[in-house]
Amino acid sequence: MQLFEKLIEYPDAERRVLDSTYQLPVEETPLGEALGLVLARDLRATVDSPPFDNSAVDGYAVRSADAEVGRTFPVVDEAPAGRPAQKSVGEGEAIKIFTGGVIPDGADAVVMVENTSGWGESFELKKAASPGQNIRDAGQDARTGSEILRAGTEVGAPEIALAATQGYGTLPVYRRPKVVVLSTGTELVEPGTRDLAPGEIFDSNSYAIVAQSREAGADASRLYAASDDAQTLRAAIEEALETADVVVTSGGVSVGEKDLVKSTLLDLGVEQVFWGVKFKPGKPLFYGKRDETRFFGLPGNPVSAMVCFDLFVRPALMGMMGREDRKRPRIRVYFEEDVVNKFGRMHAMRVSLRKTEKGWLASSVGAQGSGLVSSLTRADALALIGPESEGVRAGEPAEAIVLREERLL
Amino acid sequence: MQLFEKLIEYPDAERRVLDSTYQLPVEETPLGEALGLVLARDLRATVDSPPFDNSAVDGYAVRSADAEVGRTFPVVDEAPAGRPAQKSVGEGEAIKIFTGGVIPDGADAVVMVENTSGWGESFELKKAASPGQNIRDAGQDARTGSEILRAGTEVGAPEIALAATQGYGTLPVYRRPKVVVLSTGTELVEPGTRDLAPGEIFDSNSYAIVAQSREAGADASRLYAASDDAQTLRAAIEEALETADVVVTSGGVSVGEKDLVKSTLLDLGVEQVFWGVKFKPGKPLFYGKRDETRFFGLPGNPVSAMVCFDLFVRPALMGMMGREDRKRPRIRVYFEEDVVNKFGRMHAMRVSLRKTEKGWLASSVGAQGSGLVSSLTRADALALIGPESEGVRAGEPAEAIVLREERLL
Repeated sequence: MQLFEKLIEYPDAERRVLDSTYQLPVEETPLGEALGLVLARDLRATVDSPPFDNSAVDGYAVRSADAEVGRTFPVVDEAPAGRPAQKSVGEGEAIKIFTGGVIPDGADAVVMVENTSGWGESFELKKAASPGQNIRDAGQDARTGSEILRAGTEVGAPEIALAATQGYGTLPVYRRPKVVVLSTGTELVEPGTRDLAPGEIFDSNSYAIVAQSREAGADASRLYAASDDAQTLRAAIEEALETADVVVTSGGVSVGEKDLVKSTLLDLGVEQVFWGVKFKPGKPLFYGKRDETRFFGLPGNPVSAMVCFDLFVRPALMGMMGREDRKRPRIRVYFEEDVVNKFGRMHAMRVSLRKTEKGWLASSVGAQGSGLVSSLTRADALALIGPESEGVRAGEPAEAIVLREERLL
Repeated sequence: MQLFEKLIEYPDAERRVLDSTYQLPVEETPLGEALGLVLARDLRATVDSPPFDNSAVDGYAVRSADAEVGRTFPVVDEAPAGRPAQKSVGEGEAIKIFTGGVIPDGADAVVMVENTSGWGESFELKKAASPGQNIRDAGQDARTGSEILRAGTEVGAPEIALAATQGYGTLPVYRRPKVVVLSTGTELVEPGTRDLAPGEIFDSNSYAIVAQSREAGADASRLYAASDDAQTLRAAIEEALETADVVVTSGGVSVGEKDLVKSTLLDLGVEQVFWGVKFKPGKPLFYGKRDETRFFGLPGNPVSAMVCFDLFVRPALMGMMGREDRKRPRIRVYFEEDVVNKFGRMHAMRVSLRKTEKGWLASSVGAQGSGLVSSLTRADALALIGPESEGVRAGEPAEAIVLREERLL
């Protein structure tokens, strides 16, 4: 029996996903909501930052030439942050100033209150001052018109701070992809609602895929449809295709005659980019598109579904958000024991990692069955074995895709 | 003039924050919202997973002893996922089965449809089968009662998948801290609303601190209060103390007489844990508590505020959420050039990192002024210099706190 028209290799499948990924529209997004998104345009300074010469400390603005130890200065005015002094600093005079206060005319230094006899109508100086001391020059952080952030930068807290100092209330960022995760299958029971009847299992894939989508930065939601009812399924897929940037299903893309998903998709105008990858776990992966919407039909086995998400869906989502680091990082690992791959296709083997003097040592997390969800909680990375070779010998290097970066530091 | 009663060392300040951090209450949280939170209790399997022997493929359930190449099998029933077959498999018979379907009585193997003449009333077998082939045994992923996840585990997508397979609709996790960020200062203008008048600056700190809080996993919001108006300020602090787990201000904790924040705090019953750390950037850091609420008065300079957040507030938030990795990771770095610290207190120097054969090479991002927000966008880590020594010589190691872990892979 002929099943998949043409299985393709993993790198080819990855390339086809990345090649067909486009950046989502740019939206002017309120500063507070831009965290984790990617700048679509260079940002330039709109003002000098700081906008004026100001004091780095609490103290007195003086002329440095007058600042002899032991001298008493009359305090003629004050300059709190936000309210410049009315007067200027004449010879032998001082103006009380606070951190961020505008340096008054005439002054060229600020003496810290710690180096005086204290706050008052006048004070005695205990330490000399040099020109420019404790003054932050206008424009020292950014000059009007200069580039402050580059297109392609991921917006973190420092970038938000920098944009705010320049008065940007919004940032031009690629918007988050909307992911709809279809949960299909009459055997599925919603966790926490009731006990299982014979033949039933709890739905885990749709929860996992929503979580993975959110970890990638997408807005994700679940949509349930009983897959045995062709009309319900068709309506759900139609709704998903119309509302989402990316639709993800798990199961229903294999070769069983009960698998309605694929036929429904083609019927709804989804163009198949590929179906079937020489890859374990995840051979029956389906990828298609309809206009701007992308459709991933992940395998139904939980491990296959999550691994295929990481290797194919996640890079697509990252690309849609304008991320340059679309793919998970790869590192070199080596095995302490021989690792065999007799599957004739690339095996993304779940491994735990341990740092040694020689580098990263990988060990299989144990049985690699695609139903073993617990194995994924123990996996730090996916070691890529084959398909050219039938395995990797102990001590030889292999490439591994890091799943949990935070565990590697 | 005496300013801070008693400056303490950075490690002492960090210890006092961590020692006074408590875990927030455990809440049964819907599975879909538990991402990134920490399990407060061990989770045990409530059912065998999978709950029954089931098929790993689409094909036919048979007796392996009958499975000779070339034999024709009548198909007597079917077992799609979720609906066990009514009949059992007799000698020489087969039952059509789909991935996840219950293995019918009598059968001890499943032959893939790929290894048959195809779907039909009967089929011819093209490849022999061995006992147990393509069968996933009940309980192979987890046995009822066995521990599946440990208290203290951070909930990622694999943990959500595993809990879902066990029917957990909610997870017992420490709840997210509520952070209220007070924005105080009459010199502050909301970014994006209007141009600056003389002496004014755009508010950046409260945006940055909210972003940092969210990056740490907290729920964070801003609250504006003009700091020059004692009554408005007092009302805002009171409101923040009553609604938040953690209140954060920036500015107003220095020694200027305009700094009302600290006196208002003490007046409102906030107990000072420390005020003033021998640390650069961030000497005037204030830390206090009132009942279960924690109060951080960060310095007003943007870089000081953000660095102090990372080193003091973030570990407190992580601890409240039950995270074991409360502090940011530290690595050893070395400098190519001598680095000087003449401040007499520990300097957390903003550095960029580069991987070399010898290890991580650190370079200062440039001028280290605490108003230079742009420097933080270029910093990968904070190298800790001093206070015992007056610097680090080229080639000597220093410790560095990693700010952007993702840049290190």
